[in-house]
Amino acid sequence: MPIKSKIRSIPDYPKKGIMFRDITTLIKDAVGFRLMIDNLTQRYITKEIDYDLIAGIEARGFIMGGAMAYTLGKGFVPIRKSGKLPAEVVSQEYSLEYGVDTIEMHKDSFVPGTRVLIVDDLLATGGTALAAAALIEKLGGVVAEIAFIVNLPDVGGEKKLRDKGYEVFSLTEFEGD
Amino acid sequence: MPIKSKIRSIPDYPKKGIMFRDITTLIKDAVGFRLMIDNLTQRYITKEIDYDLIAGIEARGFIMGGAMAYTLGKGFVPIRKSGKLPAEVVSQEYSLEYGVDTIEMHKDSFVPGTRVLIVDDLLATGGTALAAAALIEKLGGVVAEIAFIVNLPDVGGEKKLRDKGYEVFSLTEFEGD
Repeated sequence: MPIKSKIRSIPDYPKKGIMFRDITTLIKDAVGFRLMIDNLTQRYITKEIDYDLIAGIEARGFIMGGAMAYTLGKGFVPIRKSGKLPAEVVSQEYSLEYGVDTIEMHKDSFVPGTRVLIVDDLLATGGTALAAAALIEKLGGVVAEIAFIVNLPDVGGEKKLRDKGYEVFSLTEFEGD
Repeated sequence: MPIKSKIRSIPDYPKKGIMFRDITTLIKDAVGFRLMIDNLTQRYITKEIDYDLIAGIEARGFIMGGAMAYTLGKGFVPIRKSGKLPAEVVSQEYSLEYGVDTIEMHKDSFVPGTRVLIVDDLLATGGTALAAAALIEKLGGVVAEIAFIVNLPDVGGEKKLRDKGYEVFSLTEFEGD
């Protein structure tokens, strides 16, 4: 698959034993970037997935989320690291290997009942995506689906998200990670 | 102008005396987001500005940069805070009110001679944009133009960038900031 072949693998990043899947080599290429967005949007122009709004997870999720929102004619809402949003927020903590992190959304991101498509570049443990879904639900929204460029199924995030009842879509997978 | 009317102004953020111009209220609206991107891309589909690649400044510059790159058929390169990029980088420090900050790009972001359109949401002092331009030039690239959603001309960034010879474009301005 051309998209997969343009993703760079960097051993021992961010630490020893981790094989980092780097999409910057895919998206700096005009054709690679177009194919990536086309493959995502073609799924979401059908009527099968019902959604009103796109939420991108900081920071790489902003890149494809912005392109998808424009192409699909939807609004875009950022899910940010804590302390980055200027108005009133809702927050959600999630566990990292050591300690916790927090993501936030503006309280007025959308009206209750809104169906939200969450997007990010990479699905590994699923911790950030689960926290993002929790934020959507705290605001009265419904998670329509969670979309990724890369899924690492052996890390277990996809299973965790599906077990919680979320729909998951990814463009490509790397096994054995 | 409809774009300007959808930008929210938040007094005393991030600190007392600063009027923060918040584009999240513009981009969560499907029509607002589309108009914002259409107004930007209509400038760059003409032949007047010659560029090969779009570079977005983390994090809000990723949102419009991704949409612009897709729509204009160009590749996208992220300009990130230090320590966020997995491969070899070039770095550029710049001054904040207190202390310094650093932004980075991958060394293999583009080949020398590439003409780069830099995008970000807000032009205030111009410090980040100048550092971004310096990064492009360290890699042998040429800054084609620097585009913003919002310009705060009274803060002086636009003048500073123009005095250094850069082309600057912004969709809207707030005076008196």
